[in-house]
Amino acid sequence: MRTVHAYAAPSATEPLAPTTVERRDVGPHDVLIGIKYAGICHSDIHTARGEWGGALYPLVPGHEIAGVVEEVGPEVTRYAVGDRVGVGCFVDSCRECANCRAGEEQYCDRGETGTYNAVGRDGRPTAGGYSTHIVVDENYVLRIPDALELDVAAPLLCAGITLYSPLSHWGAGPGKKVAVVGLGGLGHMGVKIAAAMGAEVTVLSQSLKKQEDGLRLGAQHYHATSDPATFEQLRNSFDLIVSTVSANVDINAYLGLLKVNGTLVLVGLPENPIPVAAFSVVQNRRSLAGSKIGGIRETQEMLEFCAEHGLGAEIEVIDASQVNEAWERVIASDVRYRFVIDTATLQG
Amino acid sequence: MRTVHAYAAPSATEPLAPTTVERRDVGPHDVLIGIKYAGICHSDIHTARGEWGGALYPLVPGHEIAGVVEEVGPEVTRYAVGDRVGVGCFVDSCRECANCRAGEEQYCDRGETGTYNAVGRDGRPTAGGYSTHIVVDENYVLRIPDALELDVAAPLLCAGITLYSPLSHWGAGPGKKVAVVGLGGLGHMGVKIAAAMGAEVTVLSQSLKKQEDGLRLGAQHYHATSDPATFEQLRNSFDLIVSTVSANVDINAYLGLLKVNGTLVLVGLPENPIPVAAFSVVQNRRSLAGSKIGGIRETQEMLEFCAEHGLGAEIEVIDASQVNEAWERVIASDVRYRFVIDTATLQG
Repeated sequence: MRTVHAYAAPSATEPLAPTTVERRDVGPHDVLIGIKYAGICHSDIHTARGEWGGALYPLVPGHEIAGVVEEVGPEVTRYAVGDRVGVGCFVDSCRECANCRAGEEQYCDRGETGTYNAVGRDGRPTAGGYSTHIVVDENYVLRIPDALELDVAAPLLCAGITLYSPLSHWGAGPGKKVAVVGLGGLGHMGVKIAAAMGAEVTVLSQSLKKQEDGLRLGAQHYHATSDPATFEQLRNSFDLIVSTVSANVDINAYLGLLKVNGTLVLVGLPENPIPVAAFSVVQNRRSLAGSKIGGIRETQEMLEFCAEHGLGAEIEVIDASQVNEAWERVIASDVRYRFVIDTATLQG
Repeated sequence: MRTVHAYAAPSATEPLAPTTVERRDVGPHDVLIGIKYAGICHSDIHTARGEWGGALYPLVPGHEIAGVVEEVGPEVTRYAVGDRVGVGCFVDSCRECANCRAGEEQYCDRGETGTYNAVGRDGRPTAGGYSTHIVVDENYVLRIPDALELDVAAPLLCAGITLYSPLSHWGAGPGKKVAVVGLGGLGHMGVKIAAAMGAEVTVLSQSLKKQEDGLRLGAQHYHATSDPATFEQLRNSFDLIVSTVSANVDINAYLGLLKVNGTLVLVGLPENPIPVAAFSVVQNRRSLAGSKIGGIRETQEMLEFCAEHGLGAEIEVIDASQVNEAWERVIASDVRYRFVIDTATLQG
């Protein structure tokens, strides 16, 4: 066991505070990672504040982790000391079910082991990336290509793969019209990735406030969803819509924007059930689908894709001491587009 | 113009009664069909009783039409007098939009012209199959293969294609586990067609009352949805579920039965919006989709498929005078599995 510095939520209602956390000894298949950067994801906040239920305190959030290998177990074959690596939303899974065997560990039948707020094979709670070090089985570690800086790579481990996976699965590419709903941490990566895949990208955002950004990131069109004319004008026009918002929107209005065989994919998680009119999907043979991060193999593929196309997240690097303030700004959507904690500031 | 016998609803609240209706003169591209059989679809009742709004009275229902060509216009090339033909849910469409050009006339951007309760190009209301004759443009007429009797073929024009299209589109076939929800007019054709496609078919019905029928029609498994254990036992197990019910069910329970990449297709039209929990689709990358009948090309393909596999509807042939009683029995789900009107009884 080794004691490392971290930031943790002591309870659902208290601010994050500096603390220490125990990391397990490096086992035969384990990699000890010196964390350099940890992205702040809105789900860190939902989880730590108990909004999704079942939180284990003290809770160390963080599942957008980029760092460098400091030690490897004797059986490790994929990584060596000094390698640039990342860790995403899960650090283990059953490895036996059909989904794990197919490399879709995110849909593990027995539930994948979250990077934080879960219980690992050793029976101890997992602790995330708001920390200086983490010990992870090599099979759940990603390689960060040299072309990507670690700070802009960190958010790819959740925000990047969450958008890459559905865009790839539903065939975003040349000749396809893709809309991204919401231009936040997830949405801005969706625009970059869909544009790099060759799709014609439209941003559907509440207002035109971030229009300039959206076009700079790769979108060709930008529409305000607060304007009812948007839904008239764009009726039956998209092959694929990826919705990154967790606010409750009129999903039938968005479904109406899909052409025949079009799909609207939810990657945000609205809290309340979404009322879907049967006619919205029966007309034009539309689909309402969901997608959850991606498997290890696909996450690696995403990192290579982002490296090849020079796609990192748009980030604001902060000190650990600023994390509570940053959380408030995430809740207020006041970030362009991802906060990343410089974990060197955790030590003091 | 020619005057022909028909049964019509005089208003939303009156029973159907014998009447006559005017059919247009046979135009250059038209076919005059002597109707032999007309299936009774639940949507006939919804429409005639004004439950779907906007009904035009007197209303002659019927969009499952099988008959014989009695006359053709001078430009007709596809059909000749004596040919065995069918007409389904629409008799025209814009022919210009992308969907019409792609042979997906059922999704015509301007709205296809319904076989009844619509307004045709000539500005006159259309009248359906509860009638002795109908005049239809040859491009919207189907050929009924010799291997299919006209009476069991009639319901294929709506019930058959409504199930064939999603089963074909979502790849029902060997190695695929397919569930059909509801064993009625639509569902029983779904079981027959999915089994003929080579899928492993399960019926999900409210009770086990029709289990023997379901297995005889081609299902390998039969479960009661009134038993909560069904939803535990079948969790994560289907590639495709086609729901034929229009009752409001807990759609999240059904979505939970889909494995990774599975799709639940609605072909029934529940009246109220369906509450969908985002998690139900995000987990296992599931889709909730819809499907609406099929295009002319695909309907012809379905008829050939049914002829090849010897699939007709299970029917109860009735006289026109029994139609009001039959409607009550359809509403009470007291039919195995489709009423078909012998239109010879309309004349008197």
